[in-house]
Amino acid sequence: MVSPRIGLWLVGARGGVASTATLGLCALKRRLIGAAGLVSELPQFAGLELAAWESFVVGGHEIRAGSLRDSALELANSSRAIDGRLVDECRDDLAEIDLRIRPGVLCRSGAAVEDLASLDLPQDPTPRDCIRRLQGDLAEFIAAENLEHLVLVNVASTEPPVQPADLPSRWAELDATLDDWSTCRLPASSLYAIAAIEMGLSAVNFTPSLGSSPPAIDDLARQRKARHMGCDGKTGETLMKSVLAPMFRQRNLHVMSWVGHNIFGNLDGVVLNDPANKASKVASKDHLIGEILGYRPQTLVSIEYIESLGDWKTAWDHIHFTGFLGTPMTLQFIWQGCDSLLAGPLVLDLARFTEKAWRRGEIGLMTFLASFFKSPYGIGEHDFTRQFQALEAWVAGA
Amino acid sequence: MVSPRIGLWLVGARGGVASTATLGLCALKRRLIGAAGLVSELPQFAGLELAAWESFVVGGHEIRAGSLRDSALELANSSRAIDGRLVDECRDDLAEIDLRIRPGVLCRSGAAVEDLASLDLPQDPTPRDCIRRLQGDLAEFIAAENLEHLVLVNVASTEPPVQPADLPSRWAELDATLDDWSTCRLPASSLYAIAAIEMGLSAVNFTPSLGSSPPAIDDLARQRKARHMGCDGKTGETLMKSVLAPMFRQRNLHVMSWVGHNIFGNLDGVVLNDPANKASKVASKDHLIGEILGYRPQTLVSIEYIESLGDWKTAWDHIHFTGFLGTPMTLQFIWQGCDSLLAGPLVLDLARFTEKAWRRGEIGLMTFLASFFKSPYGIGEHDFTRQFQALEAWVAGA
Amino acid sequence: MVSPRIGLWLVGARGGVASTATLGLCALKRRLIGAAGLVSELPQFAGLELAAWESFVVGGHEIRAGSLRDSALELANSSRAIDGRLVDECRDDLAEIDLRIRPGVLCRSGAAVEDLASLDLPQDPTPRDCIRRLQGDLAEFIAAENLEHLVLVNVASTEPPVQPADLPSRWAELDATLDDWSTCRLPASSLYAIAAIEMGLSAVNFTPSLGSSPPAIDDLARQRKARHMGCDGKTGETLMKSVLAPMFRQRNLHVMSWVGHNIFGNLDGVVLNDPANKASKVASKDHLIGEILGYRPQTLVSIEYIESLGDWKTAWDHIHFTGFLGTPMTLQFIWQGCDSLLAGPLVLDLARFTEKAWRRGEIGLMTFLASFFKSPYGIGEHDFTRQFQALEAWVAGA
Amino acid sequence: MVSPRIGLWLVGARGGVASTATLGLCALKRRLIGAAGLVSELPQFAGLELAAWESFVVGGHEIRAGSLRDSALELANSSRAIDGRLVDECRDDLAEIDLRIRPGVLCRSGAAVEDLASLDLPQDPTPRDCIRRLQGDLAEFIAAENLEHLVLVNVASTEPPVQPADLPSRWAELDATLDDWSTCRLPASSLYAIAAIEMGLSAVNFTPSLGSSPPAIDDLARQRKARHMGCDGKTGETLMKSVLAPMFRQRNLHVMSWVGHNIFGNLDGVVLNDPANKASKVASKDHLIGEILGYRPQTLVSIEYIESLGDWKTAWDHIHFTGFLGTPMTLQFIWQGCDSLLAGPLVLDLARFTEKAWRRGEIGLMTFLASFFKSPYGIGEHDFTRQFQALEAWVAGA
Repeated sequence: MVSPRIGLWLVGARGGVASTATLGLCALKRRLIGAAGLVSELPQFAGLELAAWESFVVGGHEIRAGSLRDSALELANSSRAIDGRLVDECRDDLAEIDLRIRPGVLCRSGAAVEDLASLDLPQDPTPRDCIRRLQGDLAEFIAAENLEHLVLVNVASTEPPVQPADLPSRWAELDATLDDWSTCRLPASSLYAIAAIEMGLSAVNFTPSLGSSPPAIDDLARQRKARHMGCDGKTGETLMKSVLAPMFRQRNLHVMSWVGHNIFGNLDGVVLNDPANKASKVASKDHLIGEILGYRPQTLVSIEYIESLGDWKTAWDHIHFTGFLGTPMTLQFIWQGCDSLLAGPLVLDLARFTEKAWRRGEIGLMTFLASFFKSPYGIGEHDFTRQFQALEAWVAGA
Repeated sequence: MVSPRIGLWLVGARGGVASTATLGLCALKRRLIGAAGLVSELPQFAGLELAAWESFVVGGHEIRAGSLRDSALELANSSRAIDGRLVDECRDDLAEIDLRIRPGVLCRSGAAVEDLASLDLPQDPTPRDCIRRLQGDLAEFIAAENLEHLVLVNVASTEPPVQPADLPSRWAELDATLDDWSTCRLPASSLYAIAAIEMGLSAVNFTPSLGSSPPAIDDLARQRKARHMGCDGKTGETLMKSVLAPMFRQRNLHVMSWVGHNIFGNLDGVVLNDPANKASKVASKDHLIGEILGYRPQTLVSIEYIESLGDWKTAWDHIHFTGFLGTPMTLQFIWQGCDSLLAGPLVLDLARFTEKAWRRGEIGLMTFLASFFKSPYGIGEHDFTRQFQALEAWVAGA
Repeated sequence: MVSPRIGLWLVGARGGVASTATLGLCALKRRLIGAAGLVSELPQFAGLELAAWESFVVGGHEIRAGSLRDSALELANSSRAIDGRLVDECRDDLAEIDLRIRPGVLCRSGAAVEDLASLDLPQDPTPRDCIRRLQGDLAEFIAAENLEHLVLVNVASTEPPVQPADLPSRWAELDATLDDWSTCRLPASSLYAIAAIEMGLSAVNFTPSLGSSPPAIDDLARQRKARHMGCDGKTGETLMKSVLAPMFRQRNLHVMSWVGHNIFGNLDGVVLNDPANKASKVASKDHLIGEILGYRPQTLVSIEYIESLGDWKTAWDHIHFTGFLGTPMTLQFIWQGCDSLLAGPLVLDLARFTEKAWRRGEIGLMTFLASFFKSPYGIGEHDFTRQFQALEAWVAGA
Repeated sequence: MVSPRIGLWLVGARGGVASTATLGLCALKRRLIGAAGLVSELPQFAGLELAAWESFVVGGHEIRAGSLRDSALELANSSRAIDGRLVDECRDDLAEIDLRIRPGVLCRSGAAVEDLASLDLPQDPTPRDCIRRLQGDLAEFIAAENLEHLVLVNVASTEPPVQPADLPSRWAELDATLDDWSTCRLPASSLYAIAAIEMGLSAVNFTPSLGSSPPAIDDLARQRKARHMGCDGKTGETLMKSVLAPMFRQRNLHVMSWVGHNIFGNLDGVVLNDPANKASKVASKDHLIGEILGYRPQTLVSIEYIESLGDWKTAWDHIHFTGFLGTPMTLQFIWQGCDSLLAGPLVLDLARFTEKAWRRGEIGLMTFLASFFKSPYGIGEHDFTRQFQALEAWVAGA
């Protein structure tokens, strides 16, 4: 175990996922919790010399007022998802981190996200000014905390879709659009990513938002020797799809239809209740079935806000398939998981693996992280086991 | 595609699985059905030159009277599992195969199986005489049908457990126990396997019965240059376990308990209603969770006979696991599949792959077939995807 | 048992529900099936002297070409919902009934329904002409079959919603709108109802369409001494709601949210895939929870067309409720029923009970039939058991 | 609302149900919780002048050491079933009640229950001495707390079954068996009931144990003008059965099989893991389906101890039924409820309704309470709605 000083910069720093990741990191440092849910704590990664939890210092951007403690208590009280006493024990740590959270940016975030904003956000004259401001926050954090490296992870609310195809493929061309808000077609998620990548840092997009997916931003990453990866953390129903769809393919059981209904009641749900934002999410949850199977069965994905469920994401999937002699059969599953608690540890894992990639001198897309994402950049393989084997192979190549 | 003449000899030839496999083979030859459910029809095996369906000629042993058509109609009428018109179209084929079914043997099969016997079975003076009789049936079939090779697949009812550890590990020693029924501890499933293996043929055990699992029978297989593999076809709930348990392990989600309740109403269910026979099945369905996870959560497997369900095996699994911060979460699945229709095509696949192994000159355990079995002989790997990769690797090695 | 000659006139006569009711009636007359699914065959109605199945003669209106036999075979082959041999045995009966099916009417039926129309429908100059035409069909049928009475049951596709509040409450005023298509706001379902009611016959609306629900049509019924009732047959998920919601109320378990997702693939599903038509259905499925509980939890009802399911309506309901000490708990159910087979027998029951009401000389709304409907006309009680007790009380009052 | 001083005497006073009822009563007195789960708080009982929560003083018998607070914290921490802060707020109340808990009695309780005993229990020379001791505890409590009446509610662990048919039907004869432990065939639950009933108090049996079910004890109750009722609180899966089975009957849908698997991990589960004790429970959960339907489908009830679930009773029920034209269909439900939290409020309701019956001067069996029990004494009606109507009718008769 090594202990470099590494910044973990969370975009959406007081959201459910960020609060959980932050609380969990505090609890890990205090030895209050075990390794459950943390991929990087698996035995096969023990020899990898990943950075110790003590290495990580948390900061972030946010558009909402409030405190990390309040966000964590919401998960404890409304959702009964975490133990309130753990929040109490980490209270001082959370208060300290709250001081390192800076105002973020709203840009093509959609009305549902804008409605959430309660902080007094700076009015940046141009997109480039905005990026400079964000970079100033990162630089200040790095200096104040004496950090060797920083991994920015976007865990903010989902933005409406932007077609990457509409964007130029070279950084120079994209860069030229940043002089004016009217010419810039990038959403906030991409501005955050550019801010970190331009500084040679690492950027991870845990959301279905555009982030660093445009080729022009990958171009920038290669120029600046930065690392990046995304998108959309694979935590529950889609994780299940990525292990079950290969089973149907390998047994030659023909999937006729795959219906998935998701209900949950956290803030993410409020945002996804807006059809514009929901479109990004549904697309990301839906495509992989056809890509794994090699044909397109009828699919249906819904994701609905049911307030009483809080952070408890409940998914019912109904898979209708044809077996031998053409006989139709059915598999159904019901997943009842806490969304933030499934995502939070993966954020910590991604920070750790990314730090290692930086230490190894790797640049560009971190495709070995595909198993963490619903729509991994640059990777067509959606079979979870094969994605995980790629991670193991990367480790072996260390 | 090659077309050797190959015997497919089914033990339990009028049971649900055998009837389905036989009906399906007839329907494949007549181009009445598609490839659904057939692993060997997957694109990745297209270059393997597997034997064409036309290559296979079916015969078998049975202890019950009746006809293949009646068994198939039972699946059509009572279970609504297959289309009765398909049975009508293959009526003549089935009648012809019925003529090639010979009386089998009862031996340590358990009272539940003995109660099913309705054929007038020969009284063999010694186990060795019994084996000779079975071999006579095989030889007669091979001669009459002018076969190049024969694959015996056991799809008979589950026998009560026998501890392989109680048996000698060398063939010579086991052979010495076959002079007298009182010294022989082998059940019928092993006598069938020995019959085929001693003749240098191939034996596959699709049931949880003892079959060819004793090391002494593997010893015989190596001496006679025969092939064998088992045991217990992995078709439904256990297939699900072998894809889901790896997911929990790879995400470090700690499984606290895994409960699986299975209900179904076919003849297999009648036999498994006897606690002695059920013990074999439950053990085979249960062990792999601990072996995949690397620790032993509390597990519970029940399998109960509910007459109205017929061939529709319905399984409810409840998996209780701990995520990040120790929060308990739940996954449940409900599997509604036709037992015989899931097993039948795998029997055909096993015959095809086994024939290919014979053609390649391979002998002994066919471990590359692990993905087909709940308790694969000689294989500790229970992760379905990795087992399937072993099959693909074997193909690549052709 | 009495045997009057009674017409059962089905609107949507070749749809899934009508085909099933018709096939079932033929099978009952031929003693080919049992009483399962038929409410009127319960022991408590044995003394009621309901009309024998032999009493009923089927005719109907339809907008689609095809034959009853084809519709029934679709249920047998695509959906595996009924036994194809039953269709064969009733083949001649169905062909005879096909000859008594007349072209219907399209009017405010929605684009989805209009797309289904394949018969060459007459162009009636005015709504009143249309009603006269429909009445001519009924009169011809009554005369040809020498009928004492006729019960028209609407089992056609769901129409888009019409607000009854927009319509006049007196028949004279509504009647005045029938001179011109441009002034008439009634959909086809109401024109059929008016046709029957104006003749003093009986009309039952098994669909969520407007039908005879406008007070002006009830006014007409009282004037003409006709009987009518509706609407929307309560067959599956909503039936479950009407037995479960009272349980929660009577145990004072506070329902926070009730989510119901319905998937199915029959023709009804094609029509409901159109948002305009779906609106009628969802409203009818949703309201009763709040009406039973006495408060309005968050509710969500979806109904989606999944082709592979055919007639198998599958519903997943997730009910989130608060128990003692404020602890949230969950009930989920999964209903897998054949839509047409649940509805078909109720159509026959309604015809029988309605005939009895006619024989008793009752006129106006038949509120004693509330247990058959999702949105019973004139009845605020949605507790199924109490609705059923009202039926039993009506019987006792005979 | 009236405020007499009433004793609520709980047998098994530190078990999960008693702890929940006691904590809830404290919380109700302190206005910390709402009415959820409390039947007696429904609007239709508002005019009944039930005793206020302040009226009730809790005492009880127990065989285990420990404290009420520990039992409540177990529900908060292991099961996450209640909020630990509520326990803290009621801490002093619980400690005071702990002082009023006396050592109970073990007698034909089964090995599993005896293994739980950790208090130093008195050795009573004869059953009659034991009853006198228990009566002394009740009398002391009544005197010390200046009580007008006392309701004893048995919420102790389930005992193995005793056949009531083996017992005399007159009290004089049963009384004669109490001189010697060797002649007494009564279990502890009956001794507690006799103790209260002989004093003219009220006894309620919330468990499937024998309790006051023998006719001879009812004979005693009538002689002493006492009230009693039982048995086996209807809280979850069986409550569901008693609302769903009537639906199937009233729609004439023929139930072919009804399978119910229950898993949970509280202390009750430990005891029920003993086949002797489980037999009482399964019989009580199983019989009512046949009694409601009027015929006996194949039924299966299992109840298994799965430690990780704690108080969360999870039940999966699979109901296979035949609809019109003989087509098989399926309803499944999954119930996830906290066992103690469903039972606790009913204990309080039973105490309140029983107190009212005492105030009204009623004696003998309180059959109007049938809706609270799986196997109500003296009542063959198992339809929940009709049972509830009987409660409403009793109220109306006040």
